[in-house]
Parts: sequence; structure tokens; C-alpha cells
Amino acid sequence: MGFDVGAHLVRLGIVSSTSDHASVVSINIFVALLCSCIVIGHLLEENRWMNESITALIIGLCTGVVILLTTKGKSSHILVFSEDLFFIYLLPPIIFNAGFQVKKKQFFRNFMTIILFGAIGTMISFFIISLGAIEIFKRIDVGSLDVGDFLAIGAIFSATDSVCTLQVLNQDETPFLYSLVFGEGVVNDATSVVLFNALQDFDINHVDAITVLKFVGNFFYLFLTSTFLGVFAGLLCAYIIKKLYIGRHSTDREVALMILMAYLSYMLAELLDLSGILTVFFCGIVMSHYAWHNVTESSRITTKHVFATMSFIAETFLFLYVGMDALDIEKWKFTSDSPGNSIGVSSILLGLVLVGRAAFVFPLSFLSNLTKRSPEEKINFRKQIIIWWAGLMRGAVSIALAYNKFTRSGHTQLRGNAIMITSTITVVLFSTMVFGLLTKPLIRLLLPASSRNCVISEPTTPKSLLSPLLGPEQGGWEAETGGHSITRPSSLRMLLTKPSRTVHYYWRKFDDAFMRPVFGGRGFVPHVPGSPHEDTLNGWR
Amino acid sequence: MGFDVGAHLVRLGIVSSTSDHASVVSINIFVALLCSCIVIGHLLEENRWMNESITALIIGLCTGVVILLTTKGKSSHILVFSEDLFFIYLLPPIIFNAGFQVKKKQFFRNFMTIILFGAIGTMISFFIISLGAIEIFKRIDVGSLDVGDFLAIGAIFSATDSVCTLQVLNQDETPFLYSLVFGEGVVNDATSVVLFNALQDFDINHVDAITVLKFVGNFFYLFLTSTFLGVFAGLLCAYIIKKLYIGRHSTDREVALMILMAYLSYMLAELLDLSGILTVFFCGIVMSHYAWHNVTESSRITTKHVFATMSFIAETFLFLYVGMDALDIEKWKFTSDSPGNSIGVSSILLGLVLVGRAAFVFPLSFLSNLTKRSPEEKINFRKQIIIWWAGLMRGAVSIALAYNKFTRSGHTQLRGNAIMITSTITVVLFSTMVFGLLTKPLIRLLLPASSRNCVISEPTTPKSLLSPLLGPEQGGWEAETGGHSITRPSSLRMLLTKPSRTVHYYWRKFDDAFMRPVFGGRGFVPHVPGSPHEDTLNGWR
Repeated sequence: MGFDVGAHLVRLGIVSSTSDHASVVSINIFVALLCSCIVIGHLLEENRWMNESITALIIGLCTGVVILLTTKGKSSHILVFSEDLFFIYLLPPIIFNAGFQVKKKQFFRNFMTIILFGAIGTMISFFIISLGAIEIFKRIDVGSLDVGDFLAIGAIFSATDSVCTLQVLNQDETPFLYSLVFGEGVVNDATSVVLFNALQDFDINHVDAITVLKFVGNFFYLFLTSTFLGVFAGLLCAYIIKKLYIGRHSTDREVALMILMAYLSYMLAELLDLSGILTVFFCGIVMSHYAWHNVTESSRITTKHVFATMSFIAETFLFLYVGMDALDIEKWKFTSDSPGNSIGVSSILLGLVLVGRAAFVFPLSFLSNLTKRSPEEKINFRKQIIIWWAGLMRGAVSIALAYNKFTRSGHTQLRGNAIMITSTITVVLFSTMVFGLLTKPLIRLLLPASSRNCVISEPTTPKSLLSPLLGPEQGGWEAETGGHSITRPSSLRMLLTKPSRTVHYYWRKFDDAFMRPVFGGRGFVPHVPGSPHEDTLNGWR
Repeated sequence: MGFDVGAHLVRLGIVSSTSDHASVVSINIFVALLCSCIVIGHLLEENRWMNESITALIIGLCTGVVILLTTKGKSSHILVFSEDLFFIYLLPPIIFNAGFQVKKKQFFRNFMTIILFGAIGTMISFFIISLGAIEIFKRIDVGSLDVGDFLAIGAIFSATDSVCTLQVLNQDETPFLYSLVFGEGVVNDATSVVLFNALQDFDINHVDAITVLKFVGNFFYLFLTSTFLGVFAGLLCAYIIKKLYIGRHSTDREVALMILMAYLSYMLAELLDLSGILTVFFCGIVMSHYAWHNVTESSRITTKHVFATMSFIAETFLFLYVGMDALDIEKWKFTSDSPGNSIGVSSILLGLVLVGRAAFVFPLSFLSNLTKRSPEEKINFRKQIIIWWAGLMRGAVSIALAYNKFTRSGHTQLRGNAIMITSTITVVLFSTMVFGLLTKPLIRLLLPASSRNCVISEPTTPKSLLSPLLGPEQGGWEAETGGHSITRPSSLRMLLTKPSRTVHYYWRKFDDAFMRPVFGGRGFVPHVPGSPHEDTLNGWR
């Protein structure tokens, strides 16, 4: 009768006709694994070593083994890592939620230290890893890699993975460390964009003051435009909700609008070659400060949880994905003849990551401490160790970058590229598992419970909002004072502490007088108890 | 210096390297349009004609025009309709939310009428449209189409679009009509799967009783397995949440688990060649009956709104998409030499849809009425007209099916296929706009407010849960009674009304004695006020 399949296959096997059967199978496997990750993660929550990301990573690895065994070592195509999936769908909800739930007071109090770590720190790390790789890899046989490849290695391994940080540091237990390390991860996204732009027309023979100035200028331009875009999107959303929905609220529309506007800000930033991560992070901050107060109580509860849920699913998905992808047989094929080399390269890279991070955490903490008055505000040595340690993890961002660099246009066939890919995977797995597992115990060891509580009950008046800025910029006077224990002149102290107080005071005045009447926010809509981080919001206004 | 782009492009233009720049642009356009749809839809909410889907459709059309003009009639590739996107991502949240928020009492009270309409009705419509198309298209020049194509046309245009129904019928205003027309749309998904299976090995020369019985058997098998899968997924989710999370709740995990389990049920149904729509619909019903009562109060509010929001975004996206896609220039190229033909075909198809639906709504309503005792329970003529009218819309499902049938393997080049595609688009646009716009006024005209309120305040004891089943099955006695106004013998009445009462009574007993203690649910977890459709849940238990 010749009734050609077509028309009803869509309904029948639905996807079997339009996409292939394999993708339905893999979606099923993935969703089922996500469910099991959630359940197992919940059961292991009380465990002092584990966290959800490691659970997901291990489940992913086990599934990879099972798939390898059932397909007799042939499978690799179901689980190809896709940068699109990562950067378009998984990363935005994670970063947005981090901005939305971040303790704004902590974040802005340490703002300049965060910029310092994220910008200068990443640069230092980048140069150490790049130069180290050039020097060391020269001596062992790793296939053909040019200078561009080495600089790429530096860029891939210098960036802290903000998603990993979210997993190992607890915002409620160690708010200061969390805001510092996570904030650094957000800021260094902008750094790496600038870094790449600079390197594109970088000539090693013409490094002069203008190049450096241009570089610094570019960084600030990118940082400011990205931030501005995020703030603008957040304010626009707050304004729309406040103006349109007055007296006639619709929870579903409000929630949808917030989600879509946040996503739009991220995608716009990508379109304009800005840093999407910075943009969506600031969009989250602004939305939680204004828009969140303009919506119904139901919307408030819903948004708070739905952003966290989306972020939670994306994170779990990501680690599961990395775990499953790690065992992809194709990548290991080219390195199997020289396993010693791959292990060697991985160890060297891990060592460089350790050194590169140490090389900026300790000096920059010292600089930052110089600008702090009271001993409680200083980053003591124990905290410095935790900052160093907690930022060592390399995650999905590194894998995505490595794939993008070393697998394009079929270059995986080259031995050098294959070794780099497998080494990146090894470094990511090792750092996430080992550093990740040890972070919780390390914090417990270095910061006793009393000290951690002390961190929470810090004085609530933000004092050093801008003071760290003066530290590194006025590079001259550190040489004079020599160490952070020397009492600095009180006139200097005034200079350092007053601006931040002033800035905060005027910000509150400005916020109350101009921003809140237009964009809404706490106090300009009926107060609802039980808001998230109520104290924080109080602190920042 | 040769620093090859690669590594940082991911971070820089992020997607520009991995996917093409165009896709970032189109994501931006889409998200921005979605935002504007939400805002404009809110502004037009009070308008008595418009609804959100038509707003989205018009905005989509306008954007299509703008894109056509700016690209000087060349653009078509940004906006290609993808069945994958539709069936894997957009449809599941819409149907799941419908199941989750459906008034269960109404739905189960009319269960057999719904099955009747969805199964037998769709069949009748399918045959009328197929045969009509064969007869009429023979006489006009529409290119080469074989019998399979005509049967496909029947299948494409016989299915009510459940998404459209959600938009024009209001569950609170006309719960009976809503549950009937929407339920029909869900059930006829199973019908079309069976229909397709049957047609695959259908031999026109060997239609006998066994073929028909096999067909009926297949339908019930598919219906029951799909339903079972959905119910199983819902119960499993309820059980997991109840067992694992006792005493230690985590809202984010609960919400994530509910979303993922529901999606898993849909994808599993697709994998097993069942009806995913039926599965996810029943999964929603079971989740709202059990799992929803096991979670924290925050989760309850969050899930209620987040499912509605996801569904809302998916619906808006869909109509926007259809609107934008309609103006794709490539499709119209082949029909531009004979515009008269295309209009003719569209009109014929529209006429067939009208006739095909009338041919089952009125007779089947008559059958259904025969089984009802009280005049209030009967589907009066005015309601029949609304049922007929509200189910006339053809939407994205039709377009997806038409694309799948007529565009595969480059067949768009054939004139017959091109005409079918453009005609489908015309029918969809016309029916959604015209029928959609007129539905609200029609309901207002035919059902005065008092009557609509009367519908809401129907007696709360479900009486006719299974009674409509006896109507069509016991085909013998309608001939005896002749019309629905004749008083039927009381013994028959007892037969008809008792089973449903008994079923409901035993269901409640069973639910309270076995299901609720295991799976949780209302009364087995502390009562929380303000649950959605509280009365409904009360009614169903």
C-alpha cells in the first residue's frame, strides 16, 4: 500500500525519525543518571568528604566504564563534549544563580581584592604556566606544539573554575573566602577575553609601556561594559515589572520575564564579544536587589528556588558529562603508545598550576593586607592557603577550552594535540577529585569552628570597599612600610578608610533617593518576611 | 606570532567559534521577542479578543516580515522549523503542566467521553479528511501525490492541537469543555500512533473483523502502557521523595527530581514507541496527587509556578516560532506560480477539517448524552458547537508533521509537496487566528455568564466516571430509545450510574488504605493551606 512512513514517525518514535535513535537513548541515560545523582548526592550529603560534584563525576566515570564495556571499547560518539551545550545552556544558569544568591555585602566589601586576584593574579598565573610549559615541554617529546599552543595552555590552566568553587566553598560557613575565590573566578573570565584579544596582535618584539597600558585599558573597558550591560538588563527588568505589573501581578509572567531577561543579557554579551559571565553575574545581583522586591510573594519563593534548581541541575549535568566524557576511547587512542608521556605532561601541568597560583595568591594577599587596618580584616596565612588551594581545581571550562583549541579541524590526529587533550582530562579529574575532596577537611583543619563563626560575625559596616585599590596602584609605599605589621601613619589610614565609607554612604543615599523609587526594591514595596539574605540586602543598601 | 585563535574564542565570542555567529544572533532575537511577547501579552490581557498565542503569532509574523525586508527576501535559514526542538523540548513541559494543573475531578468524570472523542472521533475525522482529499484533489492540479500522501494529510489534519486548546479555553470558566477538548487532544496522540502503526501494514483488500479488532486492541494496549508508564514514574517520584527526604528536605533537590522524573517518563515513552504525550500527562496528574504533597511548602509553591512558567515560555516560543517560520521564503517559491491553487487547496482542507470535526462531535455527543441522567450533565447543543469550534485549530503539531512528511530528503522541490507545506501553514495560521480569535466571543455568546458559573458549581459527586463507556459499546439500545429526551428505564439507569459511583468509592478506599500510606499525599503529610485546586484534590480522593 506504500504508505510512506514520514508523517507519523514524528508522533510514533517521535525523535527516531527526526534525530537518530541514539540521541533519544542518550537523553534517557543522562536524565536517569541525573536523577540518581540527586538521590545519591542527598544520601551522601552528611558525608564529610563528598560533595555533589564529585558524586556526579564518579557516577559519570562508572557509566563511562559500563558503556565502554558494553560496546566493547568502541563507543565514543554518544558522549562527545559540546562547547555549545556548555556555554549556551549550562554555564549561564549557574553563574546567574551565583549572582542572585551571592551575599552582596561580602562581595562588594572585597571588591577590589577580587579584581586584584581575578585580573593581576590570572595574568601572573598565565605567564608562569605558559613559560613553564615552554621550558619543560621542550625537553620531553610531546609532539609538535608551537608558541601559540603553549600560550593556549597557559590560558586554559590559569583560569579558576567558578563552578567548582561553588561546590567546595560554602557561602554560609566561609563567606569571605567564598566571595573572594568565586569572585576571582568571575572576574578572570573578563581577563581571559582581554588576554586573548591582546595576544592576537601581540608582537613579542614590541612590548612597551603603550602595549601594557592598552592592555590595562582594554581590561577596564571590557569589565565596565560587561558590568554595565548586566546592570542595565537587571534594572530594565525591575522597571518593567514595577511599571507594568502594578496592581495586577502574574507570577508566571514575572518569573518568565526574569529568566528570559537574564538569559538575554548573557547572550547579548556574547554577541557583543563581552564577558557573558560577568554580565549575567551582575544581572543576577541587580535583579536580587531590585526586581526581586517588585514581584509577588509567590514569585519571590519561586525565583529563589527555581534559579537554584536550574543551577543545581546544570552543575550536576556538567560533572556527570565531564565524568562520562573522560573515558571516551578515541582520545586515548593516540596516547596509548606512550602512557608515560601523558602522565608526565599531566604531572608537569599540575605542578605548574600549583606554582602559578601560589605565585600570585601569597604576594597579592600581602598587598591586600597592607591596606587593611584591623587584624580581623586581613587575609591571614591560613586563609591564604585555603584561597590558594580552593582555586586549584580545573573543570569543565578547561576541558571546553582544550577541546576548542586542540580538536578543531580534525587535529586530534596529531600526537601533540591528543596528548594535550588527555592531559587536560587527567588534570581536571585529578584536581577535581583530589583537591575537591581535600578542601572540606582542609578548611576544617585550618579554620576551627570558632574562627569560622568569627568570620560570619564580622563587623557589618563595610570599610574597605575601595581601599585595596590603593594598595597595588600606589606601589610606592609598600616598599617604605616594608611589612604589614608596621603601623601606618594615621593620615594615610584616613585616606584609605574614608573613601570606602564615603562611597558606601553616598551609594545608600543615591539608592534611596533615585534608584529605589524608580526600580523598586526593599522598602519601596510592602515588606515581606523571609527574604533570602535579608541581612545582606540590609547591609548593602 | 601565529597565536591560533582556538583556545580563547570559546571565551571570547564564546559561541562564535563553536557554533556560527548566526545562531547567537537568532537566539538573541528569539529571547528578546519572547520578552516582548510577555510584556505585550500582559498589556492585552484585558482585551476580549486577543490571547497570548495570537499575540505571539502576530509578533512572529511581523518579525518575519522585518527579516524578509532587511535581508531583501533572501533569509530563510535562520528560522527553519525543527521537529526535534518541538517534540523534545517544547511539547513535554506544556503537556506535563496541563496534567499537573488539570482539574482531576472534571477530567475523570468525563473520562470515557474524552476517550470516545479522542479515539473514535479522531478516526472518523481522519477518514473523512483523507477520503475527501482524495476525491477533491483528483480534480484540481496539485502535483503528484500518492495514496500515502493523502492518508498523511488525513492524519495531519485530524489531530486537535492540545496546545491551542489550552490557550482558548479557560479551565476555571468552562471546566467541562476544557477537560473534554483538551483531554481529547491528549488521547488522540495515542490514536495517531496506533493509526500510523495500523496503516503501515494496511492492505485495502483485506479489511476484515480481525484487522479492526487488532486495531482496537492496539489502541488499548498503547493507551494502557503509556498511562501505566506515566503513573509509574509519578508514583516512583512520590515514593523517592517520601522515603528519602523525610525529616531533611531540600527544596532544590525535590523540584529538580520532579522535573527530571517527568521528563524521563516522556523520553522513555518515546524510546519505547509509546505515546509520550499521554505518559507525561498522567505523570503530571499522579505527581500533583502524591508527590506534590510530600515536599516542602516552598517546593509546592515553586513547582506550581515553575511548571506553569516553563509551559508558558514553551507555548509563547512555539507560536512565535510558527509565526516567524510561516514567512520562510523558500517554501513559497514553488507555489508562487500558482497562487490560486494554493489558496484552493487551503480552503478545501479547512472545509474538510470543519466537516470532519462536525461529523464526530455531534453524533458522539448524542451518544454520550444517552448515558447521562440529569439534563445538566448532558452536552447540550450550544456546548456541542463550542466543542466543535474549539477543537478546529491546527497548530505546531500539524506543521511538524507536515514538515516531516513533505520535506524529507529534499522533496520540497516537488510541486505537490511544496503546495502541501504552504497549505498547511495557511490552514494553521488561518485556523489559529480566526477560530482562535472567535472562540472567546463565541463562548460568551453561547454560554451566558450565569450558565458558565453554573458549570463551575456542578454537583461535586462524580457520577458518570464510567457511564459514557456503556453508551457506545452497548450500541444496541440507542436504536431502541431513539433520542436523548426519552426517559430511559430505571433499571438501565441503575446500571449506568452505579458502576461509576462504585468505582469512585473503591478508588477512594484503595487510595486511603494502600496508596497514600506508601506514596504520601494529602492527609498523610501535614496539611498546608493554599494548595492549587484544593477543592479538586479533595474531590478526587
